[in-house]
Amino acid sequence: MRAVDVIMKKRSGGELSRAELEFLIGGYVAGTVPDYQVSAWAMAVFFKGMTPAETGLLTDIMLRSGATMDLSGIAGPFVDKHSTGGVGDKTSLVIAPVVAALGIKDPMMSGRALGHTGGTLDKLESIPGYRTKLSVAEFRSFLEADGFAMTGQTKEIVPADRLLYALRDVTGTVESIPLITASILSKKVAEGADSLVFDVKFGSGAFMKDAADGERLARSLVDTGTAMGKKIVALLTDMDEPLGCMVGNFLEIEESLDCLEGKGPEDLMEVTLELAARMAVLGGKAKTAAEGRLLCEEAIASGKPRELFLANAARQGGDVGKLLSLRGSYRSPHAATVKASRSGYISRIDAWKVGLAGVGIGVGRARTEDAVHPDVGVQFHLKSGAAVSAGDPVMTVWAKDAESLAAALPALEGAVEYGSAPPAARKLVLKEIASE
Amino acid sequence: MRAVDVIMKKRSGGELSRAELEFLIGGYVAGTVPDYQVSAWAMAVFFKGMTPAETGLLTDIMLRSGATMDLSGIAGPFVDKHSTGGVGDKTSLVIAPVVAALGIKDPMMSGRALGHTGGTLDKLESIPGYRTKLSVAEFRSFLEADGFAMTGQTKEIVPADRLLYALRDVTGTVESIPLITASILSKKVAEGADSLVFDVKFGSGAFMKDAADGERLARSLVDTGTAMGKKIVALLTDMDEPLGCMVGNFLEIEESLDCLEGKGPEDLMEVTLELAARMAVLGGKAKTAAEGRLLCEEAIASGKPRELFLANAARQGGDVGKLLSLRGSYRSPHAATVKASRSGYISRIDAWKVGLAGVGIGVGRARTEDAVHPDVGVQFHLKSGAAVSAGDPVMTVWAKDAESLAAALPALEGAVEYGSAPPAARKLVLKEIASE
Repeated sequence: MRAVDVIMKKRSGGELSRAELEFLIGGYVAGTVPDYQVSAWAMAVFFKGMTPAETGLLTDIMLRSGATMDLSGIAGPFVDKHSTGGVGDKTSLVIAPVVAALGIKDPMMSGRALGHTGGTLDKLESIPGYRTKLSVAEFRSFLEADGFAMTGQTKEIVPADRLLYALRDVTGTVESIPLITASILSKKVAEGADSLVFDVKFGSGAFMKDAADGERLARSLVDTGTAMGKKIVALLTDMDEPLGCMVGNFLEIEESLDCLEGKGPEDLMEVTLELAARMAVLGGKAKTAAEGRLLCEEAIASGKPRELFLANAARQGGDVGKLLSLRGSYRSPHAATVKASRSGYISRIDAWKVGLAGVGIGVGRARTEDAVHPDVGVQFHLKSGAAVSAGDPVMTVWAKDAESLAAALPALEGAVEYGSAPPAARKLVLKEIASE
Repeated sequence: MRAVDVIMKKRSGGELSRAELEFLIGGYVAGTVPDYQVSAWAMAVFFKGMTPAETGLLTDIMLRSGATMDLSGIAGPFVDKHSTGGVGDKTSLVIAPVVAALGIKDPMMSGRALGHTGGTLDKLESIPGYRTKLSVAEFRSFLEADGFAMTGQTKEIVPADRLLYALRDVTGTVESIPLITASILSKKVAEGADSLVFDVKFGSGAFMKDAADGERLARSLVDTGTAMGKKIVALLTDMDEPLGCMVGNFLEIEESLDCLEGKGPEDLMEVTLELAARMAVLGGKAKTAAEGRLLCEEAIASGKPRELFLANAARQGGDVGKLLSLRGSYRSPHAATVKASRSGYISRIDAWKVGLAGVGIGVGRARTEDAVHPDVGVQFHLKSGAAVSAGDPVMTVWAKDAESLAAALPALEGAVEYGSAPPAARKLVLKEIASE
């Protein structure tokens, strides 16, 4: 077999076999197929796509390129949630303890902030002492104890994806639905869950800018994951505006605690509960999503998820006393308030602009090697739909230094759009796509 | 500037600027842009194409990546012919001395056999002693003396093409008309001709299998070359059947001498004279192609081109005495005859199959590092249109050894197609495409 023939087959729209994909991608990982052939293939995939069966094969080959998490001996059900990334999206931090309170195990392997999107690991590490690099033994033991554990992806998990993603990133081949599907799904299947809920976001703050692309990705994730023997549900959710009122690292930990105390902002709670409800169904704890949602609401009211959140924080090295005492005050001194530039209604807050400004002030990172800051971010006092008078405080901003604060303010001011009438209500969960 | 942005611009169908192409291709030659980005770009070009202006910029950037032949001080006009490659195509060997006899200088830089197509350099080197690696001083002096000189492309000429072609060859990005155009044209412009005649072949033995693709390439070569200030004519010619009766190295030298002695086969003479006629026009020796053709026919009848051919052979180190004494007898002992399998008419001889069989018996090479043999090949005693009786000898085959002979015979038998009626006449020169 020759790599060039495999590339040309894909170039002309052919469906690659397991042997062909194994030759190309297995060969890439093994070092026998060079990157310049893989990038040409990836570009051909960008133009010609892959069939669901082919996407499943690629996912499986990537999965088998490395180790998978061994959850044997631990009682399930194992259900995880994965978001395609957004701004202010702290649903994972709330969902894991909520579904754990229902008796579902959530083996979470999370990512870091990159570009305008936040990262669960960075948020967790803003809790003083919290460790996100767990050994397999720790991960298993914490998962068993609290029903969830939070760790980063190890080098041993899907090495093919690390290689392939780095190559796609510099060759203009990121935006391919089958390649995104295989990248996401191989990592999620490797972490050992039996079933998965995907939060596929669309809108300015999401990777997929429009709902149609989001739906295609959701459908691809569901179809491919189902073909691999997993139960999958995907929700298509709106990420045009930041989720909740806090965008930051410790700020989002605080807002997660708010949610677990029944004080979460409405939009954030809506998405969180809809996702958690599907996990309850997949984990066999509820027959319908409505029933699952009710169980999650009851769990939050019981206080159990909050206890589990703090128990996990302590178990992963976090100083819970400090976490609670810092609440409301762990803020950089480089602060400013953005005020309403006119009277009327806030019609939109552009998540993309907020996310990019967040990179500047130290919430996120432009490159993987950049550092993030725990005590910076944005708090929205008003969100879209709110009536405002010129001069009302719309948000408070905390930045890593005075320079970045000054640079971010005009961008954040520009992220807020105003109108003379209230905007149409946004539907946060647009669609549910599930295994048939 | 970032290479990934240039790739993504092309991916979405954008027209790249000189600065962008210079960054990518100049950077590739300089080693600052890695091959995996260039291959992804090439695949994007395969799908999205390039505008004529963009193709011209790429050609110019490739041209400037190396040295160009300095013809200053030599009296012109300088006109060259380039063929896109075929089977039995020895027109260059005949054309150069014919147009030289008209007072046109042909600075020829030729290539080698690769895959099923033959190579002018390999044919010339079958003349005992003939050297195709000339210094610039030799090339200039021989060109001045005989009106033409035959050399290989040096490393200094268009290094970007050598790099880019090698990359395209293994990444499934060869078959892109703008990339083919830039590759051909950059080398031809570098060799210093003022005007160029392209023989764009189509059919089974050509790179372009159908006439429509051939015409697109011809149009691209003419438009791009014209935009670069050259006078260009392209003929679209049939390469579905081997050209002439000989396919080999020394065999084709013999057939070229036949042509120069007025005894060339009809199909070969037709294509040769039509091409040479356009060179006569571009070189200012004739007003019309018809007039040019007449001049070429008169030149051949005068015997001057044959003298020039032998003068050049001697000048480039060839042993003319041996060349003439070996004529008709320089044949490998591993020979066989292919006989007609039925009575009727020969309806087609598949050039592709003959070319591939040629690689096996030692005419051509599968990989650039393979060696070729001077004394092997195929001589057709009958071509398409001929009436045959079962058992009539159709061709004689000479191979490098008994094994390759045995392997080639069934393939060569399979290359001959028969019918009960004479086939429709083939039009050898389908179309002329010229600068406007």
